[in-house]
Amino acid sequence: MDILLWHEILEPYELAVKELQVKFRHLIKEHHGKGMYSPIESVSGRVKSVSSILEKMQRKGIVPEEMEEQVEDIAGIRIICQFVEDIEKVADLIQKRSDIEIKSEKDYIRHMKDSGYRSYHLIVYYTVETMNGPKRIQVEIQIRTMAMDFWATIEHSLQYKYKANIPDHIRERLSAAAKAIIVLDNEMSSVRSEIMDAQNSSQMQRNL
Amino acid sequence: MDILLWHEILEPYELAVKELQVKFRHLIKEHHGKGMYSPIESVSGRVKSVSSILEKMQRKGIVPEEMEEQVEDIAGIRIICQFVEDIEKVADLIQKRSDIEIKSEKDYIRHMKDSGYRSYHLIVYYTVETMNGPKRIQVEIQIRTMAMDFWATIEHSLQYKYKANIPDHIRERLSAAAKAIIVLDNEMSSVRSEIMDAQNSSQMQRNL
Amino acid sequence: MDILLWHEILEPYELAVKELQVKFRHLIKEHHGKGMYSPIESVSGRVKSVSSILEKMQRKGIVPEEMEEQVEDIAGIRIICQFVEDIEKVADLIQKRSDIEIKSEKDYIRHMKDSGYRSYHLIVYYTVETMNGPKRIQVEIQIRTMAMDFWATIEHSLQYKYKANIPDHIRERLSAAAKAIIVLDNEMSSVRSEIMDAQNSSQMQRNL
Amino acid sequence: MDILLWHEILEPYELAVKELQVKFRHLIKEHHGKGMYSPIESVSGRVKSVSSILEKMQRKGIVPEEMEEQVEDIAGIRIICQFVEDIEKVADLIQKRSDIEIKSEKDYIRHMKDSGYRSYHLIVYYTVETMNGPKRIQVEIQIRTMAMDFWATIEHSLQYKYKANIPDHIRERLSAAAKAIIVLDNEMSSVRSEIMDAQNSSQMQRNL
Repeated sequence: MDILLWHEILEPYELAVKELQVKFRHLIKEHHGKGMYSPIESVSGRVKSVSSILEKMQRKGIVPEEMEEQVEDIAGIRIICQFVEDIEKVADLIQKRSDIEIKSEKDYIRHMKDSGYRSYHLIVYYTVETMNGPKRIQVEIQIRTMAMDFWATIEHSLQYKYKANIPDHIRERLSAAAKAIIVLDNEMSSVRSEIMDAQNSSQMQRNL
Repeated sequence: MDILLWHEILEPYELAVKELQVKFRHLIKEHHGKGMYSPIESVSGRVKSVSSILEKMQRKGIVPEEMEEQVEDIAGIRIICQFVEDIEKVADLIQKRSDIEIKSEKDYIRHMKDSGYRSYHLIVYYTVETMNGPKRIQVEIQIRTMAMDFWATIEHSLQYKYKANIPDHIRERLSAAAKAIIVLDNEMSSVRSEIMDAQNSSQMQRNL
Repeated sequence: MDILLWHEILEPYELAVKELQVKFRHLIKEHHGKGMYSPIESVSGRVKSVSSILEKMQRKGIVPEEMEEQVEDIAGIRIICQFVEDIEKVADLIQKRSDIEIKSEKDYIRHMKDSGYRSYHLIVYYTVETMNGPKRIQVEIQIRTMAMDFWATIEHSLQYKYKANIPDHIRERLSAAAKAIIVLDNEMSSVRSEIMDAQNSSQMQRNL
Repeated sequence: MDILLWHEILEPYELAVKELQVKFRHLIKEHHGKGMYSPIESVSGRVKSVSSILEKMQRKGIVPEEMEEQVEDIAGIRIICQFVEDIEKVADLIQKRSDIEIKSEKDYIRHMKDSGYRSYHLIVYYTVETMNGPKRIQVEIQIRTMAMDFWATIEHSLQYKYKANIPDHIRERLSAAAKAIIVLDNEMSSVRSEIMDAQNSSQMQRNL
């Protein structure tokens, strides 16, 4: 496929990422406006690069005509939460929406990957309007705490460098860091109700 | 109504303005990405201020419980075109969308207001997702050329200063300016096909 | 020069464009905050593309080692004013600044180009901080009214298509449009003081 | 002081925050553009709210005429790093700049506050250009790792709720979390050179 064709294929995914970022960021604002604690702390998004799509197709043996169906994370949204408990709340908020339909869920928090990776993943259907009418596409939504995100960012860099072969001594350090993160998230959870109260009252002040 | 209540009422209108700006701006990108001339030059948006809403309610005798139905321009989107001919194209693009339903249209271009005001207005229904589920609201979409927009900006400032009573000598100057703008838009239209060609080829270059 | 080298050369120009946009846009806010009419209506900026730089070097016989000195518009800032009278005020504001040094000025408003082009141009020196210390670079600042900008945008597209050879019948239409723009700017100037008053009082309201 | 006066006082601080964010964010881009690891991960900024300024003046007995000198954090910039080691590098980069002059430094990383707070603070002088000429103001720059920032955000909310009197059982949890963060930052530091390599090679790829 040449560059102009790729451009055309990825266009609706770019639009979906932009729209969903606006929508989820507004949810934060809506909670604060009502003087409520927001389970969403921040939102980011990206469209997968052409080289990453090609690499995934090759690795998983995906033929071009099945690309849009099989590569489920061409469009990606990442939602960061303050507390582990917020993750489920966000998943619930998404499930209730009329503009998003959930295709599948993977809970890597209850079922941590061997590497130490923890996150909640949703694959969803979302419809964007193109010049040629509506188009229904897939979007991957990752939900995680700030601490989980920190770990994942680091691990992603190392994966990129070493491919599948991260040396053992580094893998051990990553694993130790993953444990520190679980401790950290647990300590935070134990004061969650206090902090939610605290943030509500500060929000109420700001609204007045 | 107190300030927190207003805040809650206007929240979905703010979201609609943000979403529609993202969508219309992406349409520009989509045209350019396909090497096509875009009938949309730029997009802006705003939510009406509480004081302007109150002033309109008083002037038109609108009761609070009918505010959201009767004040049709709480959310406003403005689309600027290079040429008069583009305006109709944009109206067509909007009509075809599955996420927008047209309630009414007013063509102040064929039927210029006495003041000299020219623009194409659509009142549309658009649905946003709130914390409490979907909400269908009204949005006013104004479509005009850069020259029409320039005139309208100036007239709006004067209206604001003089209320209904703009002095005659100023009204005459505004009227003369409105005529200069019609001449300008006509001259531009006479070279429109040349310019569209020119902008397409420059866009194609940039895509390569 | 290869792509990474170009990247490095253009980096400080990108920074200058970003900084100057922030600074000039803040000037608008500063005027409004004091309840004053702002002579600046809007600000945009761009770094010249590598292909446009190369084309200019070839056309003017500029050797690579003199590129940064001879191509004066690698960084470009455009300031749009509501009225012709504002242009001089903006030029004065720039002259007084301690962070910008003026190298040269060209007044294409009093001395319109044959094509009909009208604008006020400044070439200035501006210092940005890089990883390797401060670097003093040149920036071109164009100041024009909305109407002049409209005309210039259109003419630029046609220039691009026809190179030096815009056909006579189009050149005549452009010339007629340039005249309509002078009429328009004059009509506007004749009500300028009224409009400035009007915009001041609306701004004061908003600040309260 | 009334609202319009506050507005005028804070204006230059807002500009400083905007300019410094542009400058520090560009530093990230400059590192990546050269295929280098960036010691800065992200940058944010804020101007202190009027109520927080008043509260601080009262708490510290600061008289109005000494406000701008004594309240050193009216303008605040926060720089987030991936690793503890990066913090010193960022402080060095700031020290070398010709547009920033350092007034004082506080190292709460080597000398952790009793509460568990860790960060590197700089108070600097920075000059902005106003309508009335240049103005030299103070800015507080906080430099910390993502993990330190996470902890500080949480503690700030609790401080806000309980004023000086955070209950002991919460203070203990915060302290435990602070320890988990030190472990986490240490684990990360132990693989820092590997990760820097990894991120450099991924950056180089992206530049090609």
